[in-house]
Amino acid sequence: MPLHRIYSNKGTFTAAEKHDIAKNIRKVYSVLPAFYVVVAFVDLDPDSFYVGNDAVNGKFVRIVTQHLARTNIGAKRTDYIVGLIQDAFKPYVQDRGLDWEIHIEEMEREGWRENGMIPPMPNTDAEKLWVKEDKPVEYDGAYFKE
Amino acid sequence: MPLHRIYSNKGTFTAAEKHDIAKNIRKVYSVLPAFYVVVAFVDLDPDSFYVGNDAVNGKFVRIVTQHLARTNIGAKRTDYIVGLIQDAFKPYVQDRGLDWEIHIEEMEREGWRENGMIPPMPNTDAEKLWVKEDKPVEYDGAYFKE
Amino acid sequence: MPLHRIYSNKGTFTAAEKHDIAKNIRKVYSVLPAFYVVVAFVDLDPDSFYVGNDAVNGKFVRIVTQHLARTNIGAKRTDYIVGLIQDAFKPYVQDRGLDWEIHIEEMEREGWRENGMIPPMPNTDAEKLWVKEDKPVEYDGAYFKE
Repeated sequence: MPLHRIYSNKGTFTAAEKHDIAKNIRKVYSVLPAFYVVVAFVDLDPDSFYVGNDAVNGKFVRIVTQHLARTNIGAKRTDYIVGLIQDAFKPYVQDRGLDWEIHIEEMEREGWRENGMIPPMPNTDAEKLWVKEDKPVEYDGAYFKE
Repeated sequence: MPLHRIYSNKGTFTAAEKHDIAKNIRKVYSVLPAFYVVVAFVDLDPDSFYVGNDAVNGKFVRIVTQHLARTNIGAKRTDYIVGLIQDAFKPYVQDRGLDWEIHIEEMEREGWRENGMIPPMPNTDAEKLWVKEDKPVEYDGAYFKE
Repeated sequence: MPLHRIYSNKGTFTAAEKHDIAKNIRKVYSVLPAFYVVVAFVDLDPDSFYVGNDAVNGKFVRIVTQHLARTNIGAKRTDYIVGLIQDAFKPYVQDRGLDWEIHIEEMEREGWRENGMIPPMPNTDAEKLWVKEDKPVEYDGAYFKE
Protein backbone atom coordinates (compact mmCIF):
# COMPACT_ATOMS: atom_id res chain seq x y z
CA MET A 1 0.00 0.00 0.00
CA PRO A 2 -0.70 2.45 -1.42
CA LEU A 3 -1.95 0.44 -4.40
CA HIS A 4 -2.91 2.16 -7.65
CA ARG A 5 -4.84 0.27 -10.30
CA ILE A 6 -5.08 2.18 -13.57
CA TYR A 7 -7.67 1.03 -16.08
CA SER A 8 -7.18 2.23 -19.64
CA ASN A 9 -7.16 0.86 -23.15
CA LYS A 10 -3.96 -0.82 -24.28
CA GLY A 11 -1.75 1.76 -25.96
CA THR A 12 -3.12 4.76 -24.09
CA PHE A 13 0.33 5.15 -22.54
CA THR A 14 3.75 4.10 -23.84
CA ALA A 15 6.06 2.07 -21.65
CA ALA A 16 8.13 5.19 -20.91
CA GLU A 17 5.01 7.13 -19.96
CA LYS A 18 3.85 4.37 -17.62
CA HIS A 19 7.24 4.40 -15.95
CA ASP A 20 7.07 8.20 -15.61
CA ILE A 21 3.60 8.02 -14.08
CA ALA A 22 4.79 5.37 -11.59
CA LYS A 23 7.74 7.56 -10.61
CA ASN A 24 5.45 10.57 -10.22
CA ILE A 25 3.10 8.58 -8.00
CA ARG A 26 5.99 7.39 -5.88
CA LYS A 27 6.90 11.05 -5.19
CA VAL A 28 3.41 11.65 -3.76
CA TYR A 29 4.32 9.28 -0.94
CA SER A 30 7.89 10.42 -0.35
CA VAL A 31 7.52 9.85 3.40
CA LEU A 32 6.80 6.13 2.86
CA PRO A 33 9.17 3.30 1.96
CA ALA A 34 9.45 3.35 -1.84
CA PHE A 35 8.55 -0.33 -2.02
CA TYR A 36 5.12 0.41 -0.48
CA VAL A 37 4.06 2.28 -3.63
CA VAL A 38 2.60 -0.15 -6.16
CA VAL A 39 1.24 0.84 -9.57
CA ALA A 40 -0.56 -1.68 -11.78
CA PHE A 41 -1.73 -0.68 -15.26
CA VAL A 42 -4.61 -2.95 -16.19
CA ASP A 43 -4.53 -2.62 -19.98
CA LEU A 44 -7.91 -3.32 -21.52
CA ASP A 45 -8.78 -4.42 -25.05
CA PRO A 46 -10.61 -1.91 -27.26
CA ASP A 47 -13.89 -3.82 -26.81
CA SER A 48 -13.52 -4.15 -23.03
CA PHE A 49 -13.89 -0.62 -21.64
CA TYR A 50 -17.02 1.54 -21.73
CA VAL A 51 -18.19 4.87 -20.35
CA GLY A 52 -21.95 5.31 -20.52
CA ASN A 53 -23.01 3.80 -23.81
CA ASP A 54 -19.71 4.11 -25.63
CA ALA A 55 -16.40 2.32 -25.94
CA VAL A 56 -13.67 4.44 -24.39
CA ASN A 57 -11.35 4.34 -27.42
CA GLY A 58 -8.33 5.43 -25.43
CA LYS A 59 -9.97 8.67 -24.29
CA PHE A 60 -10.63 7.78 -20.64
CA VAL A 61 -8.53 6.65 -17.68
CA ARG A 62 -9.98 5.21 -14.47
CA ILE A 63 -7.75 5.27 -11.40
CA VAL A 64 -8.55 3.26 -8.28
CA THR A 65 -6.24 4.17 -5.40
CA GLN A 66 -6.20 2.23 -2.14
CA HIS A 67 -4.63 3.59 1.01
CA LEU A 68 -4.40 2.06 4.42
CA ALA A 69 -6.08 4.12 7.06
CA ARG A 70 -2.93 5.43 8.67
CA THR A 71 -5.03 7.99 10.45
CA ASN A 72 -8.46 9.54 9.92
CA ILE A 73 -7.08 12.19 7.59
CA GLY A 74 -10.19 14.30 6.93
CA ALA A 75 -11.52 16.00 3.82
CA LYS A 76 -8.85 18.68 3.43
CA ARG A 77 -5.99 16.20 3.58
CA THR A 78 -7.85 13.87 1.18
CA ASP A 79 -8.33 16.77 -1.22
CA TYR A 80 -4.61 17.55 -1.04
CA ILE A 81 -3.56 13.94 -1.67
CA VAL A 82 -6.00 13.34 -4.53
CA GLY A 83 -4.69 16.53 -6.10
CA LEU A 84 -1.12 15.24 -5.92
CA ILE A 85 -2.12 11.93 -7.49
CA GLN A 86 -3.90 13.74 -10.30
CA ASP A 87 -0.80 15.88 -10.84
CA ALA A 88 1.16 12.65 -11.33
CA PHE A 89 -1.01 11.90 -14.36
CA LYS A 90 -1.43 15.46 -15.62
CA PRO A 91 1.06 15.49 -18.54
CA TYR A 92 -0.33 12.22 -19.88
CA VAL A 93 -4.03 12.66 -19.19
CA GLN A 94 -5.34 16.17 -18.54
CA ASP A 95 -2.83 17.91 -20.81
CA ARG A 96 -3.83 15.61 -23.67
CA GLY A 97 -7.53 16.22 -23.24
CA LEU A 98 -8.29 12.73 -21.97
CA ASP A 99 -11.07 12.29 -19.43
CA TRP A 100 -10.35 10.65 -16.14
CA GLU A 101 -11.96 9.53 -12.92
CA ILE A 102 -10.35 8.64 -9.62
CA HIS A 103 -11.48 7.52 -6.23
CA ILE A 104 -9.47 6.71 -3.14
CA GLU A 105 -10.37 3.83 -0.85
CA GLU A 106 -9.20 3.85 2.76
CA MET A 107 -8.78 0.21 3.77
CA GLU A 108 -8.11 -1.44 7.11
CA ARG A 109 -4.48 -2.34 7.83
CA GLU A 110 -5.27 -5.42 9.89
CA GLY A 111 -4.78 -8.00 7.15
CA TRP A 112 -1.86 -6.20 5.44
CA ARG A 113 1.51 -7.92 5.15
CA GLU A 114 4.79 -7.14 3.33
CA ASN A 115 6.81 -10.30 2.71
CA GLY A 116 4.81 -11.86 5.52
CA MET A 117 5.57 -9.11 8.04
CA ILE A 118 3.12 -6.76 9.71
CA PRO A 119 4.23 -3.31 8.56
CA PRO A 120 5.30 -0.91 11.31
CA MET A 121 2.97 1.85 12.44
CA PRO A 122 3.38 5.30 10.87
CA ASN A 123 6.19 7.55 12.05
CA THR A 124 7.88 4.87 14.17
CA ASP A 125 11.58 4.07 14.22
CA ALA A 126 10.70 0.77 12.59
CA GLU A 127 9.04 2.57 9.66
CA LYS A 128 12.09 4.79 9.31
CA LEU A 129 14.18 1.62 9.13
CA TRP A 130 11.96 0.28 6.35
CA VAL A 131 12.34 3.58 4.49
CA LYS A 132 16.12 3.42 4.82
CA GLU A 133 16.45 -0.26 3.88
CA ASP A 134 13.67 0.01 1.25
CA LYS A 135 12.54 -3.50 2.05
CA PRO A 136 10.71 -5.28 4.86
CA VAL A 137 13.11 -6.09 7.69
CA GLU A 138 12.44 -7.50 11.14
CA TYR A 139 11.77 -5.01 13.88
CA ASP A 140 10.75 -4.91 17.52
CA GLY A 141 7.14 -4.45 18.47
CA ALA A 142 5.06 -5.67 15.55
CA TYR A 143 1.59 -4.20 15.82
CA PHE A 144 -1.52 -6.20 16.61
CA LYS A 145 -4.86 -4.50 17.06
CA GLU A 146 -6.46 -6.18 20.11
CA MET B 1 -18.77 5.72 -10.25
CA PRO B 2 -20.54 3.41 -10.45
CA LEU B 3 -17.63 1.23 -11.56
CA HIS B 4 -18.22 -2.33 -12.78
CA ARG B 5 -15.29 -4.72 -13.15
CA ILE B 6 -16.24 -7.91 -14.91
CA TYR B 7 -13.85 -10.84 -14.62
CA SER B 8 -14.27 -13.60 -17.19
CA ASN B 9 -12.19 -15.66 -19.54
CA LYS B 10 -11.25 -14.02 -22.82
CA GLY B 11 -13.88 -14.92 -25.43
CA THR B 12 -16.73 -15.40 -22.97
CA PHE B 13 -18.41 -12.40 -24.60
CA THR B 14 -18.09 -11.00 -28.10
CA ALA B 15 -17.37 -7.31 -28.62
CA ALA B 16 -21.02 -6.71 -29.52
CA GLU B 17 -22.17 -8.52 -26.37
CA LYS B 18 -19.82 -6.49 -24.18
CA HIS B 19 -21.20 -3.32 -25.69
CA ASP B 20 -24.77 -4.54 -25.09
CA ILE B 21 -23.97 -5.36 -21.47
CA ALA B 22 -22.44 -1.91 -20.97
CA LYS B 23 -25.52 -0.27 -22.46
CA ASN B 24 -27.79 -2.38 -20.24
CA ILE B 25 -25.79 -1.41 -17.16
CA ARG B 26 -25.99 2.25 -18.10
CA LYS B 27 -29.82 1.95 -18.10
CA VAL B 28 -29.73 0.78 -14.47
CA TYR B 29 -28.45 4.21 -13.53
CA SER B 30 -30.65 6.30 -15.80
CA VAL B 31 -30.89 9.02 -13.15
CA LEU B 32 -27.10 9.55 -13.20
CA PRO B 33 -24.92 11.29 -15.77
CA ALA B 34 -24.15 8.66 -18.41
CA PHE B 35 -20.42 9.33 -18.11
CA TYR B 36 -20.51 8.19 -14.44
CA VAL B 37 -21.23 4.61 -15.53
CA VAL B 38 -17.96 2.78 -16.20
CA VAL B 39 -17.70 -0.85 -17.27
CA ALA B 40 -14.33 -2.61 -17.50
CA PHE B 41 -14.12 -6.18 -18.75
CA VAL B 42 -10.97 -7.73 -17.31
CA ASP B 43 -10.43 -10.56 -19.77
CA LEU B 44 -8.46 -13.40 -18.22
CA ASP B 45 -6.36 -16.08 -19.88
CA PRO B 46 -7.68 -19.68 -19.74
CA ASP B 47 -5.10 -20.55 -17.08
CA SER B 48 -5.77 -17.46 -14.96
CA PHE B 49 -9.28 -17.92 -13.54
CA TYR B 50 -10.39 -20.57 -11.03
CA VAL B 51 -13.48 -21.44 -9.04
CA GLY B 52 -12.79 -23.90 -6.25
CA ASN B 53 -10.31 -26.40 -7.64
CA ASP B 54 -11.10 -25.91 -11.31
CA ALA B 55 -10.30 -23.58 -14.16
CA VAL B 56 -13.39 -21.63 -15.11
CA ASN B 57 -13.24 -22.46 -18.83
CA GLY B 58 -15.57 -19.64 -19.80
CA LYS B 59 -18.40 -20.93 -17.59
CA PHE B 60 -18.25 -18.31 -14.81
CA VAL B 61 -18.47 -14.53 -14.59
CA ARG B 62 -17.47 -12.51 -11.54
CA ILE B 63 -18.87 -8.99 -11.26
CA VAL B 64 -17.50 -6.45 -8.79
CA THR B 65 -19.67 -3.34 -8.65
CA GLN B 66 -18.65 -0.24 -6.74
CA HIS B 67 -21.08 2.49 -5.81
CA LEU B 68 -20.52 5.67 -3.94
CA ALA B 69 -22.60 5.90 -0.81
CA ARG B 70 -25.06 8.44 -2.11
CA THR B 71 -27.28 7.64 0.81
CA ASN B 72 -27.66 4.71 3.19
CA ILE B 73 -29.95 2.84 0.83
CA GLY B 74 -30.92 -0.18 2.93
CA ALA B 75 -31.40 -3.85 2.11
CA LYS B 76 -34.53 -3.57 0.00
CA ARG B 77 -33.06 -0.91 -2.27
CA THR B 78 -29.81 -2.92 -2.55
CA ASP B 79 -31.80 -5.99 -3.52
CA TYR B 80 -33.61 -3.98 -6.18
CA ILE B 81 -30.39 -2.56 -7.65
CA VAL B 82 -28.49 -5.83 -7.66
CA GLY B 83 -31.45 -7.39 -9.43
CA LEU B 84 -31.30 -4.73 -12.14
CA ILE B 85 -27.56 -5.26 -12.61
CA GLN B 86 -28.08 -8.99 -12.92
CA ASP B 87 -30.82 -8.37 -15.49
CA ALA B 88 -28.26 -6.43 -17.54
CA PHE B 89 -26.24 -9.64 -17.85
CA LYS B 90 -29.14 -12.08 -18.11
CA PRO B 91 -29.19 -12.77 -21.86
CA TYR B 92 -25.42 -13.38 -21.90
CA VAL B 93 -24.97 -15.20 -18.59
CA GLN B 94 -28.03 -16.73 -16.91
CA ASP B 95 -29.83 -17.56 -20.18
CA ARG B 96 -26.72 -19.39 -21.41
CA GLY B 97 -26.36 -21.46 -18.26
CA LEU B 98 -23.20 -19.71 -17.11
CA ASP B 99 -22.60 -19.31 -13.38
CA TRP B 100 -22.05 -15.87 -11.93
CA GLU B 101 -21.31 -14.07 -8.72
CA ILE B 102 -21.70 -10.41 -7.91
CA HIS B 103 -21.15 -8.18 -4.96
CA ILE B 104 -21.68 -4.46 -4.56
CA GLU B 105 -19.26 -2.28 -2.61
CA GLU B 106 -20.48 1.01 -1.18
CA MET B 107 -17.43 3.31 -1.10
CA GLU B 108 -16.87 6.74 0.41
CA ARG B 109 -17.22 9.68 -1.96
CA GLU B 110 -14.62 11.85 -0.28
CA GLY B 111 -11.70 11.03 -2.59
CA TRP B 112 -13.78 10.86 -5.77
CA ARG B 113 -13.07 13.22 -8.67
CA GLU B 114 -14.29 13.50 -12.27
CA ASN B 115 -11.77 15.36 -14.45
CA GLY B 116 -10.43 16.81 -11.21
CA MET B 117 -13.78 18.10 -9.99
CA ILE B 118 -15.67 17.06 -6.89
CA PRO B 119 -18.94 15.62 -8.23
CA PRO B 120 -22.12 17.38 -7.11
CA MET B 121 -24.29 15.86 -4.43
CA PRO B 122 -27.26 13.72 -5.50
CA ASN B 123 -30.42 15.39 -6.72
CA THR B 124 -28.90 18.87 -6.84
CA ASP B 125 -29.20 21.35 -9.68
CA ALA B 126 -25.50 20.83 -10.30
CA GLU B 127 -26.00 17.09 -10.78
CA LYS B 128 -28.88 17.81 -13.17
CA LEU B 129 -26.47 20.04 -15.11
CA TRP B 130 -23.92 17.19 -15.31
CA VAL B 131 -26.67 14.86 -16.55
CA LYS B 132 -27.66 17.37 -19.24
CA GLU B 133 -24.11 18.19 -20.35
CA ASP B 134 -22.97 14.56 -19.90
CA LYS B 135 -19.57 15.77 -18.77
CA PRO B 136 -18.04 17.40 -15.69
CA VAL B 137 -18.62 21.13 -15.76
CA GLU B 138 -17.94 23.77 -13.14
CA TYR B 139 -20.72 24.48 -10.70
CA ASP B 140 -21.38 26.54 -7.58
CA GLY B 141 -20.99 24.99 -4.17
CA ALA B 142 -18.58 22.07 -4.55
CA TYR B 143 -19.05 19.75 -1.62
CA PHE B 144 -16.50 19.22 1.12
CA LYS B 145 -17.24 16.97 4.08
CA GLU B 146 -15.95 18.86 7.14
CA MET C 1 -16.45 -14.72 -2.02
CA PRO C 2 -13.76 -15.05 -1.00
CA LEU C 3 -12.30 -13.38 -4.08
CA HIS C 4 -8.54 -13.32 -4.67
CA ARG C 5 -7.05 -11.04 -7.31
CA ILE C 6 -3.40 -11.72 -7.94
CA TYR C 7 -1.41 -9.08 -9.79
CA SER C 8 1.88 -10.22 -11.31
CA ASN C 9 3.76 -10.00 -14.57
CA LYS C 10 2.74 -12.45 -17.27
CA GLY C 11 4.91 -15.54 -16.99
CA THR C 12 5.59 -15.22 -13.26
CA PHE C 13 3.65 -18.45 -12.81
CA THR C 14 3.08 -21.35 -15.19
CA ALA C 15 -0.44 -22.63 -15.82
CA ALA C 16 0.24 -25.62 -13.55
CA GLU C 17 1.52 -23.34 -10.79
CA LYS C 18 -1.54 -21.10 -11.03
CA HIS C 19 -3.76 -24.15 -10.73
CA ASP C 20 -1.77 -25.34 -7.69
CA ILE C 21 -2.06 -21.94 -6.04
CA ALA C 22 -5.83 -21.92 -6.66
CA LYS C 23 -6.15 -25.38 -5.12
CA ASN C 24 -4.06 -24.30 -2.13
CA ILE C 25 -6.25 -21.26 -1.61
CA ARG C 26 -9.38 -23.37 -1.81
CA LYS C 27 -8.02 -25.48 1.10
CA VAL C 28 -7.80 -22.36 3.28
CA TYR C 29 -11.59 -22.15 3.13
CA SER C 30 -12.38 -25.84 3.51
CA VAL C 31 -15.48 -25.02 5.58
CA LEU C 32 -17.01 -23.06 2.69
CA PRO C 33 -18.64 -24.30 -0.51
CA ALA C 34 -15.79 -24.85 -2.97
CA PHE C 35 -17.52 -22.70 -5.58
CA TYR C 36 -17.31 -19.67 -3.25
CA VAL C 37 -13.52 -19.58 -3.64
CA VAL C 38 -12.58 -17.52 -6.70
CA VAL C 39 -9.00 -16.86 -7.84
CA ALA C 40 -8.26 -14.43 -10.69
CA PHE C 41 -4.70 -13.94 -11.90
CA VAL C 42 -4.49 -10.50 -13.50
CA ASP C 43 -1.43 -10.98 -15.69
CA LEU C 44 0.30 -7.68 -16.40
CA ASP C 45 2.60 -6.72 -19.26
CA PRO C 46 6.27 -6.08 -18.43
CA ASP C 47 5.74 -2.30 -18.75
CA SER C 48 2.56 -2.26 -16.65
CA PHE C 49 3.64 -3.09 -13.09
CA TYR C 50 5.85 -0.96 -10.82
CA VAL C 51 7.04 -0.97 -7.24
CA GLY C 52 8.48 2.36 -6.16
CA ASN C 53 10.43 3.66 -9.12
CA ASP C 54 11.07 0.35 -10.82
CA ALA C 55 9.34 -2.12 -13.11
CA VAL C 56 8.62 -5.29 -11.21
CA ASN C 57 10.22 -7.62 -13.76
CA GLY C 58 8.48 -10.70 -12.41
CA LYS C 59 9.95 -10.26 -8.91
CA PHE C 60 6.83 -9.08 -7.08
CA VAL C 61 3.33 -10.42 -6.49
CA ARG C 62 0.44 -8.32 -5.16
CA ILE C 63 -2.50 -10.20 -3.66
CA VAL C 64 -5.84 -8.52 -2.95
CA THR C 65 -8.15 -10.79 -0.98
CA GLN C 66 -11.78 -9.90 -0.32
CA HIS C 67 -13.86 -11.61 2.32
CA LEU C 68 -17.42 -11.05 3.29
CA ALA C 69 -17.80 -10.04 6.89
CA ARG C 70 -19.13 -13.35 8.14
CA THR C 71 -18.42 -12.20 11.64
CA ASN C 72 -16.16 -9.61 13.27
CA ILE C 73 -13.22 -11.99 13.39
CA GLY C 74 -10.62 -9.90 15.23
CA ALA C 75 -6.88 -9.51 14.82
CA LYS C 76 -5.79 -12.98 15.90
CA ARG C 77 -8.14 -14.74 13.50
CA THR C 78 -7.12 -12.33 10.70
CA ASP C 79 -3.47 -13.10 11.40
CA TYR C 80 -4.21 -16.82 11.21
CA ILE C 81 -6.11 -16.54 7.92
CA VAL C 82 -3.59 -14.27 6.22
CA GLY C 83 -0.89 -16.73 7.24
CA LEU C 84 -2.79 -19.57 5.58
CA ILE C 85 -3.22 -17.56 2.38
CA GLN C 86 0.48 -16.75 2.31
CA ASP C 87 1.26 -20.45 2.80
CA ALA C 88 -0.79 -21.15 -0.33
CA PHE C 89 1.70 -19.06 -2.31
CA LYS C 90 4.85 -20.04 -0.42
CA PRO C 91 6.38 -22.57 -2.85
CA TYR C 92 5.91 -20.19 -5.78
CA VAL C 93 6.71 -16.86 -4.15
CA GLN C 94 8.60 -16.86 -0.85
CA ASP C 95 10.63 -19.99 -1.62
CA ARG C 96 11.75 -18.43 -4.91
CA GLY C 97 12.83 -15.18 -3.32
CA LEU C 98 10.05 -13.11 -4.86
CA ASP C 99 8.65 -10.21 -2.90
CA TRP C 100 4.96 -10.06 -2.16
CA GLU C 101 2.32 -7.93 -0.53
CA ILE C 102 -1.17 -8.87 0.55
CA HIS C 103 -4.10 -7.20 2.17
CA ILE C 104 -7.51 -8.54 3.08
CA GLU C 105 -10.67 -6.52 2.66
CA GLU C 106 -13.74 -7.35 4.72
CA MET C 107 -16.74 -6.35 2.61
CA GLU C 108 -20.45 -6.15 3.38
CA ARG C 109 -22.54 -9.16 2.34
CA GLU C 110 -25.67 -7.20 1.58
CA GLY C 111 -25.21 -6.91 -2.19
CA TRP C 112 -23.69 -10.38 -2.64
CA ARG C 113 -25.43 -12.93 -4.88
CA GLU C 114 -24.50 -16.38 -6.25
CA ASN C 115 -26.42 -17.18 -9.44
CA GLY C 116 -28.90 -14.55 -8.30
CA MET C 117 -29.47 -16.06 -4.86
CA ILE C 118 -28.69 -14.51 -1.49
CA PRO C 119 -26.12 -16.87 0.03
CA PRO C 120 -27.15 -18.52 3.30
CA MET C 121 -25.76 -17.27 6.59
CA PRO C 122 -22.67 -19.01 8.01
CA ASN C 123 -23.07 -22.35 9.76
CA THR C 124 -26.69 -22.79 8.75
CA ASP C 125 -28.27 -25.94 7.35
CA ALA C 126 -28.67 -24.06 4.07
CA GLU C 127 -24.92 -23.37 3.91
CA LYS C 128 -24.23 -27.04 4.61
CA LEU C 129 -26.52 -27.86 1.69
CA TRP C 130 -24.54 -25.51 -0.57
CA VAL C 131 -21.30 -27.18 0.57
CA LYS C 132 -22.73 -30.61 -0.21
CA GLU C 133 -24.21 -29.66 -3.59
CA ASP C 134 -21.27 -27.37 -4.42
CA LYS C 135 -23.61 -24.99 -6.23
CA PRO C 136 -26.26 -22.44 -5.30
CA VAL C 137 -29.58 -24.18 -4.64
CA GLU C 138 -32.84 -22.82 -3.32
CA TYR C 139 -33.31 -22.89 0.43
CA ASP C 140 -35.78 -21.71 3.04
CA GLY C 141 -35.24 -18.44 4.85
CA ALA C 142 -33.11 -16.26 2.59
CA TYR C 143 -31.50 -13.54 4.67
CA PHE C 144 -32.35 -9.86 4.46
CA LYS C 145 -30.76 -7.35 6.78
CA GLU C 146 -33.59 -5.00 7.84
